[in-house]
Amino acid sequence: MSGADTVVGYGTYVDLIRPLIKGKEIISTGMTKEVERVAAALAAAMSGSAVALVSSGDPGIYAMAGLAFEMCVQRRIDVIPAGDFLANTEKPSLRIEVVPGIPALCAGAALLGAPLTHDFAAISLSDLLTPWDVIEKRIIAAAQADFVMVIYNPKSRKRNWQLQKTREIVLGYRDGHTPVGIVTAAMRPEQVVHITTLDQLHLADVNMQTTVFIGNSSTCASAGFMFTPRGYGKKYAIG
Amino acid sequence: MSGADTVVGYGTYVDLIRPLIKGKEIISTGMTKEVERVAAALAAAMSGSAVALVSSGDPGIYAMAGLAFEMCVQRRIDVIPAGDFLANTEKPSLRIEVVPGIPALCAGAALLGAPLTHDFAAISLSDLLTPWDVIEKRIIAAAQADFVMVIYNPKSRKRNWQLQKTREIVLGYRDGHTPVGIVTAAMRPEQVVHITTLDQLHLADVNMQTTVFIGNSSTCASAGFMFTPRGYGKKYAIG
Repeated sequence: MSGADTVVGYGTYVDLIRPLIKGKEIISTGMTKEVERVAAALAAAMSGSAVALVSSGDPGIYAMAGLAFEMCVQRRIDVIPAGDFLANTEKPSLRIEVVPGIPALCAGAALLGAPLTHDFAAISLSDLLTPWDVIEKRIIAAAQADFVMVIYNPKSRKRNWQLQKTREIVLGYRDGHTPVGIVTAAMRPEQVVHITTLDQLHLADVNMQTTVFIGNSSTCASAGFMFTPRGYGKKYAIG
Repeated sequence: MSGADTVVGYGTYVDLIRPLIKGKEIISTGMTKEVERVAAALAAAMSGSAVALVSSGDPGIYAMAGLAFEMCVQRRIDVIPAGDFLANTEKPSLRIEVVPGIPALCAGAALLGAPLTHDFAAISLSDLLTPWDVIEKRIIAAAQADFVMVIYNPKSRKRNWQLQKTREIVLGYRDGHTPVGIVTAAMRPEQVVHITTLDQLHLADVNMQTTVFIGNSSTCASAGFMFTPRGYGKKYAIG
C-alpha cells in the first residue's frame, strides 16, 4: 500500500484507510460499480501508476481480485505474477500481486469462538450474478454432507427471502437446535455478535454487513461461544 | 502476543516467531500432540499466566482454537469471551480471545491469482480424526454442486492415496482440463506454487505443507494465474 501512487476502492472501504493513503491519488466508486472500479484501476496501471485496488477482508474471497484477472484476460492485457522476475517484459504487461487479508469468515469465526475447525462451505446468497437454482443446489449439497456453512450476503435492501429459504432447506437435514452465529460488521465500531439456533434464525437481525455461520451436526454452543469439535474427544482422553 | 507471559505451540511454529517471544516462557510440543499442547496452555492459564496458544495461518481453521474450547467444556472450565466485561467473574474462569489470521486458503489463493472468488468448500483429507466415508461424502457433494474445492492435508508420510481418490471422484463431475493450483509452504522460504489440471493432478508433488485448489466449472488458468469468475462477464460488458 505504501508503494502505491493510486488507490482505487469502494467509498466505504477507502474511508476506512484514509489515514494510510494521504497524498495518493484516490479513485472511489459506489456499490455495485465493480466493473467501473477495476476499469479505473487498469487504466491507471496501464498509464504507469502503481495502483492498489482495495477490498475489505481478503481480496480473493467474494471480492475484487477475480474480476481484475478476468478483465485483464478479456482486454488481452498480459499479466505477470509480481514475483516472476524471469518473465518476458518486452510486451506491454501488468505485474499483479494479490495481498491476502483476513476474510470475514475468519474475523467472524474468531468472534464466535471456533465454528470453522472442521470442513466448511462458503456460499453467497446474492443472486445478482449467480442464478438462485445454482445457489440452492449448493445449500442442499452443503447441508446434506454436514459441512459447517458460512453464508455471505444473507440479505440486502432488495433481497429479503433467501436466508429464510436457506433456513428451511437446512432444517430438512439438521436439528433445529443447531447453533447459528450471526456476526455483523466484524471488528468495526458497529460490530454485533449473536449466537442463536437454526430454529430461531428467522428472528435474527441481519443486513448487508452480516456473515452467518450455521454449525454442523457436532457444533456446540456454550457460554457465549460456539465451536465445532474436530474429533479429538472421540479418539483421546481430553476431559 | 506482546502481552503474553507464556507461549505454547508446535515446535516449528514457535521457531518461526522466536524473535517476537524473547524472554517469555515457551512450551513447545511435537506434531499430533495437540491435546498435550492445549492441556499445557490451560494449566498455565489457570495458574494465572497470560497465555498465547499459537497456530500457523488462522487459529480457527483446522487449528487449535476449537480444541481449546472443547477441552474447557470437558474440564468444566468457565470461559468468558475476552470482550465481555459484564461477565460474572466470581467463579474461577478463563478469558479467551481468538485472534484471527490469514489462513492457508487465502495465502495460497493470493499466490495462485483468485481461485476463491466464488462459493468454495474446504475439506481436509486427514482421516486421523474423521472417518474416510464422511470425507468422501463431502468430496462428492462439493464436486456435484460445483464448489471450488480447497484441500487441506492432501498427503502425509503415512497417507498417500487420498488425493488420488479425490481426483478420481471429482473427474466424475468435472472436466479433466479443470485448473488445479498446488501451493506448498505459502509465504515461507521454501514456497512452491504450481498450476496444473485435474487430469495431471496425480503427477503433482504434494506434502504435508501443501494446499490444493481445484477449480469449479468456470475457473480459468491463464499466463501463470488461475481465477474463478463470479459472473460479471455474463451480465456486464467487461471487455
